[in-house]
Amino acid sequence: MSRLGRATWDFQSTPVYVEGYGTVAGQLEGKGPLGADFDLVLENDRIDDDTWEHSEQRMFAKAVQLAMTTANVTAEQIDVLVGADLNAQLTAFYLGTRAFARPSLGVYSACASICESLAVAGLLVHTGHVDRAVAGTSSHTSTAERQFRYPTEYGAQKPPTAQRTVTGSGAVVLGTSVHPIQVTHATVGTVVDYGIASPWEMGAAMAPAACDTILQHLSDTGRSVKDYDLIATGDLGHVGLKLLKELLAEKGVPQPELRTFVDCGAMIYDPNQPEVFSGGSGGACCSIVTFSHLFRKLLNGECRRILVSATGALLSTVSVQQKDSIPSVSHAIAFERKDVQ
Amino acid sequence: MSRLGRATWDFQSTPVYVEGYGTVAGQLEGKGPLGADFDLVLENDRIDDDTWEHSEQRMFAKAVQLAMTTANVTAEQIDVLVGADLNAQLTAFYLGTRAFARPSLGVYSACASICESLAVAGLLVHTGHVDRAVAGTSSHTSTAERQFRYPTEYGAQKPPTAQRTVTGSGAVVLGTSVHPIQVTHATVGTVVDYGIASPWEMGAAMAPAACDTILQHLSDTGRSVKDYDLIATGDLGHVGLKLLKELLAEKGVPQPELRTFVDCGAMIYDPNQPEVFSGGSGGACCSIVTFSHLFRKLLNGECRRILVSATGALLSTVSVQQKDSIPSVSHAIAFERKDVQ
Repeated sequence: MSRLGRATWDFQSTPVYVEGYGTVAGQLEGKGPLGADFDLVLENDRIDDDTWEHSEQRMFAKAVQLAMTTANVTAEQIDVLVGADLNAQLTAFYLGTRAFARPSLGVYSACASICESLAVAGLLVHTGHVDRAVAGTSSHTSTAERQFRYPTEYGAQKPPTAQRTVTGSGAVVLGTSVHPIQVTHATVGTVVDYGIASPWEMGAAMAPAACDTILQHLSDTGRSVKDYDLIATGDLGHVGLKLLKELLAEKGVPQPELRTFVDCGAMIYDPNQPEVFSGGSGGACCSIVTFSHLFRKLLNGECRRILVSATGALLSTVSVQQKDSIPSVSHAIAFERKDVQ
Repeated sequence: MSRLGRATWDFQSTPVYVEGYGTVAGQLEGKGPLGADFDLVLENDRIDDDTWEHSEQRMFAKAVQLAMTTANVTAEQIDVLVGADLNAQLTAFYLGTRAFARPSLGVYSACASICESLAVAGLLVHTGHVDRAVAGTSSHTSTAERQFRYPTEYGAQKPPTAQRTVTGSGAVVLGTSVHPIQVTHATVGTVVDYGIASPWEMGAAMAPAACDTILQHLSDTGRSVKDYDLIATGDLGHVGLKLLKELLAEKGVPQPELRTFVDCGAMIYDPNQPEVFSGGSGGACCSIVTFSHLFRKLLNGECRRILVSATGALLSTVSVQQKDSIPSVSHAIAFERKDVQ
């Protein structure tokens, strides 16, 4: 029994380690400030495939392969794949990884899916139900435009609060053999809905969910903001991160501690890059930033503990057309540097 | 550690019980052979809502409420909701259950989602990470037609291998207080792809996945078909069930044992009902048949052990248009009658 509070699972009694990780990033992401941190940057987001969807599937498979290679394991040594993407019916995950022929669990909480995947995969490893699990997500700006917005050829204009869907895929292998980065906790978020109905303001829709989950995590674990070197949200973007800090300040988090908060969507692009608006979003935004840039900070000793709270906007084109508001959810994962002999 | 084989989780050491359950069925399902078994049959599949999607969301909430009522618990006593539906981005689950304001994990494996939900929820209860979890799914024939096929108004003709998406929602409350029905095992399926590309032949696409998962379950547990009174697949329909039996016979299952196999999609309608073709399908097909008809067989002593292997076809409209084949997956849950003092 390793239960804390109502929503946080503590994996420390049987430690879960990141045995391997892999990140694939698109062209624009590769040219951004974190470009050097990614394992593989595409020369062409279309790769050699006939459709954007097939390119995304191929990226997913590549990220899983990179994670298995760094973990020095083969697909046969993976007991379960847990993953997600933003395409309807999770086709990037299921079609992209089918060739590995492993037991598979698709999950979905929009752009919070990487932390949901890590939570389920971590739980399975921690409890000994599997020896080794893969968790991963993907997104592709062109499949997301087709899925959620307009045909790219329309050239529809976007407001500055809009976010660009990240092209990329990130995956990790979790297991129990001692490695430098440990997954210590997972906090499962509650769906919150503040009545925002515009799909161009997802940062605003998701900020309350991130605030709720981060405070729940701190309450469940008895920790404070100061116990973390960084607390990274998934893809609030510049607009949403500012809102999150305002919400946290309202809840009593002191101003100096707000400097601990960063956002993967706000970090992945330079604001001067074309059409990045408020920053990055998408199922891969949090996964490729966490598994490259944030992992590097743990590995080089710059950080000892990082909390990642991925954020998901729970909308579909149908729900938006039917005038539904956009509920949101955020799931958090705590990573910790372990000194390995 | 309660791990059997590579894909089966054994929950028996800390038993997981079905503390409550609820089923909502549409009009046509209510008029079918299992109509009397459902807790609530809609008089009108539109309910009073303005859209089919809102009707499905309302059904989902109603099934969860029924399950909590029979379990005699309030939403505050539920630690996590695990659920799914067939709509893109799981809007029936997330929008339908947001008013309960509980930590939530969306999962997706198409019509196998109810067993994936039960597997994750059961694992959380078994390992003590939560005290009580809800698992549930929904589907609605009119939202599925909009999602996957043609506008209903087109009146597109369908071949006899087609299946009708079940309108309904089924949910259970899982916990550790002793109740008559126990969830003993979960077997996570591997994605299989036999190259079938026609969305009108989903029974044929899914039968190999069901065969694979059922044999994996028997191998992992050291059980044989004779250890079960019934083995129910999710929604292969009449065509797929016949194929499954042929595949099982090829794998050495003796002819008399094939009588143990039934299919929720083949049972839910009378073949003389209008436009039911090869039978039912959809995220709710397996959940409402299992949580009503099959649970009744356990409760009245007709069956002592039932294996339910829900089956999912992993397609989207985009994947079909892009000429992808339809990979499939099946996840299995073993239920057992416990004599309660």
